[in-house]
Amino acid sequence: MAKAEHHRGTALTDEELRALDAHWRAANYLAAGQIYLLSNPLLTEPLRPEHIKPRLLGHWGTSPGLNLVYTHLNRVIKTRGLDALCVWGPGHGGPSVLANSWLEGSYSETYPDITRDAQGMAGLFRQFSFPGGVPSHVAPEVPGSIHEGGELGYSLTHAYGAALDNPDLVVACVIGDGEAETGPLAASWHSNKFLDPVHDGAVLPILHLNGYKIANPTVLARLPEPELDALLRGYGHVPLHVTGDDPAQVHRAMAEALDTALDRIALLQRTAREGEMKGRAPWPMIVLRTPKGWTGPAEVDGKPVEGTWRAHQVPLPGVRENPEHLRQLEAWLRSYRPEELFDAEGRPRPEVLACVPAGAKRLGATPHANGGLLVRDLPIPSLDTCAVPVDKPGATLHEPTRVLGDLLEQIMRDTAVRRDFRLVGPDETASNRLQAVFDASGKAWQAETLPVDEHLDRHGRVMEILSEHLCQGWLEGYLLTGRHGLFSCYEAFVHIVDSMVNQHIKWLKTSRELPWRAPVASLNYLLTSHVWRQDHNGFSHQDPGFVDHVLNKSPEVVRVYLPPDANTLLSVADHALRSRDYVNVIVAGKQPCFDWLSMDQARVHCARGAGIWEWASSENGGEPDVVLACAGDVPTQEVLAAAQLLRRHLPSLAVRVVNVVDMTRLLPREEHPHGMTDFEYDGLFTTDKPVIFAYHGYPWLVHRLAYRRTGHEHLHVRGYKESGTTTTPFDMVVRNDLDRYRLVMDVIDRVPGLAVRAADVRQRMVDARTRHHAWIREHGTDMPEVADWSWGA
Amino acid sequence: MAKAEHHRGTALTDEELRALDAHWRAANYLAAGQIYLLSNPLLTEPLRPEHIKPRLLGHWGTSPGLNLVYTHLNRVIKTRGLDALCVWGPGHGGPSVLANSWLEGSYSETYPDITRDAQGMAGLFRQFSFPGGVPSHVAPEVPGSIHEGGELGYSLTHAYGAALDNPDLVVACVIGDGEAETGPLAASWHSNKFLDPVHDGAVLPILHLNGYKIANPTVLARLPEPELDALLRGYGHVPLHVTGDDPAQVHRAMAEALDTALDRIALLQRTAREGEMKGRAPWPMIVLRTPKGWTGPAEVDGKPVEGTWRAHQVPLPGVRENPEHLRQLEAWLRSYRPEELFDAEGRPRPEVLACVPAGAKRLGATPHANGGLLVRDLPIPSLDTCAVPVDKPGATLHEPTRVLGDLLEQIMRDTAVRRDFRLVGPDETASNRLQAVFDASGKAWQAETLPVDEHLDRHGRVMEILSEHLCQGWLEGYLLTGRHGLFSCYEAFVHIVDSMVNQHIKWLKTSRELPWRAPVASLNYLLTSHVWRQDHNGFSHQDPGFVDHVLNKSPEVVRVYLPPDANTLLSVADHALRSRDYVNVIVAGKQPCFDWLSMDQARVHCARGAGIWEWASSENGGEPDVVLACAGDVPTQEVLAAAQLLRRHLPSLAVRVVNVVDMTRLLPREEHPHGMTDFEYDGLFTTDKPVIFAYHGYPWLVHRLAYRRTGHEHLHVRGYKESGTTTTPFDMVVRNDLDRYRLVMDVIDRVPGLAVRAADVRQRMVDARTRHHAWIREHGTDMPEVADWSWGA
Repeated sequence: MAKAEHHRGTALTDEELRALDAHWRAANYLAAGQIYLLSNPLLTEPLRPEHIKPRLLGHWGTSPGLNLVYTHLNRVIKTRGLDALCVWGPGHGGPSVLANSWLEGSYSETYPDITRDAQGMAGLFRQFSFPGGVPSHVAPEVPGSIHEGGELGYSLTHAYGAALDNPDLVVACVIGDGEAETGPLAASWHSNKFLDPVHDGAVLPILHLNGYKIANPTVLARLPEPELDALLRGYGHVPLHVTGDDPAQVHRAMAEALDTALDRIALLQRTAREGEMKGRAPWPMIVLRTPKGWTGPAEVDGKPVEGTWRAHQVPLPGVRENPEHLRQLEAWLRSYRPEELFDAEGRPRPEVLACVPAGAKRLGATPHANGGLLVRDLPIPSLDTCAVPVDKPGATLHEPTRVLGDLLEQIMRDTAVRRDFRLVGPDETASNRLQAVFDASGKAWQAETLPVDEHLDRHGRVMEILSEHLCQGWLEGYLLTGRHGLFSCYEAFVHIVDSMVNQHIKWLKTSRELPWRAPVASLNYLLTSHVWRQDHNGFSHQDPGFVDHVLNKSPEVVRVYLPPDANTLLSVADHALRSRDYVNVIVAGKQPCFDWLSMDQARVHCARGAGIWEWASSENGGEPDVVLACAGDVPTQEVLAAAQLLRRHLPSLAVRVVNVVDMTRLLPREEHPHGMTDFEYDGLFTTDKPVIFAYHGYPWLVHRLAYRRTGHEHLHVRGYKESGTTTTPFDMVVRNDLDRYRLVMDVIDRVPGLAVRAADVRQRMVDARTRHHAWIREHGTDMPEVADWSWGA
Repeated sequence: MAKAEHHRGTALTDEELRALDAHWRAANYLAAGQIYLLSNPLLTEPLRPEHIKPRLLGHWGTSPGLNLVYTHLNRVIKTRGLDALCVWGPGHGGPSVLANSWLEGSYSETYPDITRDAQGMAGLFRQFSFPGGVPSHVAPEVPGSIHEGGELGYSLTHAYGAALDNPDLVVACVIGDGEAETGPLAASWHSNKFLDPVHDGAVLPILHLNGYKIANPTVLARLPEPELDALLRGYGHVPLHVTGDDPAQVHRAMAEALDTALDRIALLQRTAREGEMKGRAPWPMIVLRTPKGWTGPAEVDGKPVEGTWRAHQVPLPGVRENPEHLRQLEAWLRSYRPEELFDAEGRPRPEVLACVPAGAKRLGATPHANGGLLVRDLPIPSLDTCAVPVDKPGATLHEPTRVLGDLLEQIMRDTAVRRDFRLVGPDETASNRLQAVFDASGKAWQAETLPVDEHLDRHGRVMEILSEHLCQGWLEGYLLTGRHGLFSCYEAFVHIVDSMVNQHIKWLKTSRELPWRAPVASLNYLLTSHVWRQDHNGFSHQDPGFVDHVLNKSPEVVRVYLPPDANTLLSVADHALRSRDYVNVIVAGKQPCFDWLSMDQARVHCARGAGIWEWASSENGGEPDVVLACAGDVPTQEVLAAAQLLRRHLPSLAVRVVNVVDMTRLLPREEHPHGMTDFEYDGLFTTDKPVIFAYHGYPWLVHRLAYRRTGHEHLHVRGYKESGTTTTPFDMVVRNDLDRYRLVMDVIDRVPGLAVRAADVRQRMVDARTRHHAWIREHGTDMPEVADWSWGA
């Protein structure tokens, strides 16, 4: 075991130290003030109960540590002229980042009401966690932030996402020791195997061990130091340890550690960029070990608080009622000597601001944290360059995702110099048939390469790791700093990131309400290897519910597309890649699928989002007897096969075929910007005819979207109902009653009069299903009448 | 860095080696046979295309490694008389575990049709991944399994869950190197800080580095060995390395490594159990580095396959069409010398079975993998011992979860000797007000303890780590091996385990269909710190959608309860803790909440799942003018407040108050076993009166459940619609239009004639909301008419 490297600090002059400490004390004062004070912000009079907020909300425990990091990042940004961004993992420490932003002036520039003086300070304090004010976390409202630290675990993957293709950027990332226990964070350390020292910036992890979570010690803080050191070296880092509770000593050690780390980063990047890098070099990181709630009350009501979990939120809870608590609070606040830090008008004194960089170098003002300022439109080629020719519907087959791969390859190629487009996925780019992109970019990989490997590339922009969390986090960080991307994922396992996409949608929703946040590129999902084609993997790989999950979220942000073939997939992807501030979910198959629409038809159909397919319908200008609706590639095929069966067996029946690409079209216009008016909806689906709707996912979703429509009582939806195993494609639809024969039976059961008139046809459908069961049991494949079916036949 | 410990192997006799190799070859043969062969299982005739399956599905790559581990576990189980269980992380290697189970005879005992002879072998091969057959993964159908390896990442946490409170059990856990990249797996290593060497069994991780995922090298396989070694030591393990591609050498090394590991485990446990353990000792683990698809085709079509990602699924894809592939397959299968392994009747020869243990010691026959055989009823005390007294509704307040804590404390105490109950949660047991349990059990913790720490206990059965993944995985492993537990979680962040609960529900659904799998205790969630009370944390902590997520799953398995007060929470929890094979989701608040029902009333109400609260209604025997329905604690309070306002302002209006505890009651009887008949539903909700439904979560969920009901068009639902921040409790309901004033307005807007007649009342409601907005902006708290409201007033 290498001896741990400890920093005791020597580099700072006494004057620098004084200034850093002044800034840190000011930030600590402002953080505590936000949690407690309604008025009397400068303590110009003795503290009285009425100066205290009636509800004490916020997190003190992590704030002094975050303040220390912010202060010291200020120093190195200024002395080195760095372009830096910081991701605050313990983002519940909102008071800290707000305090620092106010000190450096970026807060007042963003929110002119909150001036950098006594009045502004009063506003800063009052608004915090106050109704109508600002949230208690490092939310989108906070200048300089790309990361809500509320749901812990994603800071480091966000930091890596921000650093990718930003060669001049240093992304510091404070990782809380609670957060470090989460799975996503534990996996994120290995991101360094994907960071290209030539084209990417640097990530500097700062593991902040303050020892406790809400109620427990943290695992990492209680590892013996050699064990922790081994772990971090195993993650590919050289840890620099900064430990202490004496401010002066910690300031010196932190300054030295930061200088050492940044020197190493610079050397490492220079070596790599000069082509001298042999293999993968270990990146530096800092382990900062300081007390939780440092400089706050040491004891409250006879119990230790500073340095324990009791400092996590509000260390003195009874200030308005308990005179002793009030006294302690005043002593605590005055311990920072605010009169030395702020002048009579409440403005930070020059010494306090000595370490603060200027202009866009400030952490709260960097455009990288407001990526919409930097984002450029993607160069998307004409779709005609990769569209498949379709002379008549259903005559040819293509794998839709493979066709999309051609489009992505062109985009990848056309961004080779700009480097602002990435494709991420959990080891499935080729499995998902997108491998054409490898002609334009390899897969990012900095670890060992063997001769047998394919497409690995130290400078690649396709990113594959068997962690949906990292794919999602990398892409979020990349998008929020002004770039573009696509996440291709197995449909079932995208649920792994349910909670992450929640946070991202919430981030976008709030950002859209902030005029100063410029729109960023949308987060685009391609969900493939979907529920209907898990031939290899079966039941565990079947879940189409991500659509349901995102449709619970803010309608301003979420979009859901189910293109039925290759050209519609191209059209939808083109739209998604051009869009801003959305989460676009595209579900499309990778297996051969009939081509239904030409590129021109696909464009029109996708622009409408839903429409009648006249060529598949048998209405003759009048009202249909029944509507067969479909959404998704497999349901579309089954609906068309059913329409064909009906045409053959019940030629006088007027059948309308409706295909839905954009699921949110089904919602009322008042509920979603894409929602149809009732006039539009009724025009497609009628108000009184049976609608048999074959849907890709859980059938009740369609009811949830359409329950307000006049014709809702006539709507009958088929979809996936958790019935599946390793079986044939057609058996999957039969098991879930989504097959063509069942759909014909549904029509017969629901169109008035048909039950009797078409009893023989119905029996034929029952017989076909029986035939299917016997056939697959004997042959293990789908029977020829299904396997060889095509629309033209 | 300690020098890596490499095992070259010396311990085995040549005879033992021959026997182990014979077993391994037999398993390899059977694994390949399952993927390829429809008939001719013993290769008694030359292989012809018609012997080959028409669809080649399955995963070969991981199988030889799993076979090696199974073979060697057999040896040590037999020689040491171990009780062992194995969790197969790369569970897509179903052919392997099926093969071994068939060899040891447990498969034929479970499935008598699949005999241990040529005919049974033919059946074993044919059924694999065949329609009507068995899934391709280590699914519930596989004897000895508690873990579906389809969605990777959870093997190690399952293994730890199985080992807890099973002091005599050794749980081996094969971790694939792909899986090792996932977040949950990366976090799982630290589970060893929670494993009590006295009362818990041992977990032996076997990290299988076969180098590749589907299409890429794995990160861990490409770390330089000292770096990997540091990582694993940092995780708290002593790694034993077994590396090679020469079978004899690997057999010797694996045998020695297993012996070393088990000796160390025995020593460690003995030391701890004799009270001699000082601190936390590192547990052994094995790093097994063998080629992917080992012993399979070295090259196919001129490209290397063995030892590369190309061996992941079916290494020879074109066997039926391509004579060269057919020839290669035959050579491959014959390379195992099946004639040496099986007699003329297809029975494994004695040498093949020499390593196989007997009876319940066999991995496929251990009762620990069929936990329902071991589970005992929990000792649940009479609820009256912790019920809160309720003389009249709404006169007193309790924190429901705190009251539940008293019940859990008693259960924890009454299982102190049996040790078959655990409470898990991400650092929130106390935050969620369940801290009474600490009187009966501390928190499991094996790492360093400081004097200031509270409730940490080397033998504790409360488990807290800031990882929902680990909480979920530990509990799943614990339940599936026959014990009980409860997972208490912040409501919003339970989405972190969405994908895990999917897999668990799928597991239970399939298990219920297998007569040999005995029912296990249900997985019980207590979701608290819910959407309406995120005073500290705001928008990022608000998501009530887990209920929607689980309600997409198999209705046989899922149950959802929203108890409105303390006693109903007790009743629901009691029911959940007694139940089997369910996933019970209970949503309940931790904040003071009015007590509405006495314990007896609560029992009756919860047994019904939904009912009219006559005492809150103002019907007089006749039909109501309007139904006010509620589900959830906060909506119930608002509905009762609205009912009171209506009683005061519109005394002649007949208002019925309905409370729903069990959400699945709203579903049709045909859709869920708890669903109400239409007769029952109509009796509660009427068929034609307006129903204003205040629901805890996303409002459309209620429509999705009730859309088939006759009165659905009169149903108007209020709930959470993604509007929130750090604000007061009442402001949260106002922001989402769930507040009492809005509910009264809804009534006025929907009851025919009231819009005009009660225009003044409506205006008062509008005024009250205006007053609210002004008040909170000024005071930061809820206005007295809300804050001091009670039903009795």
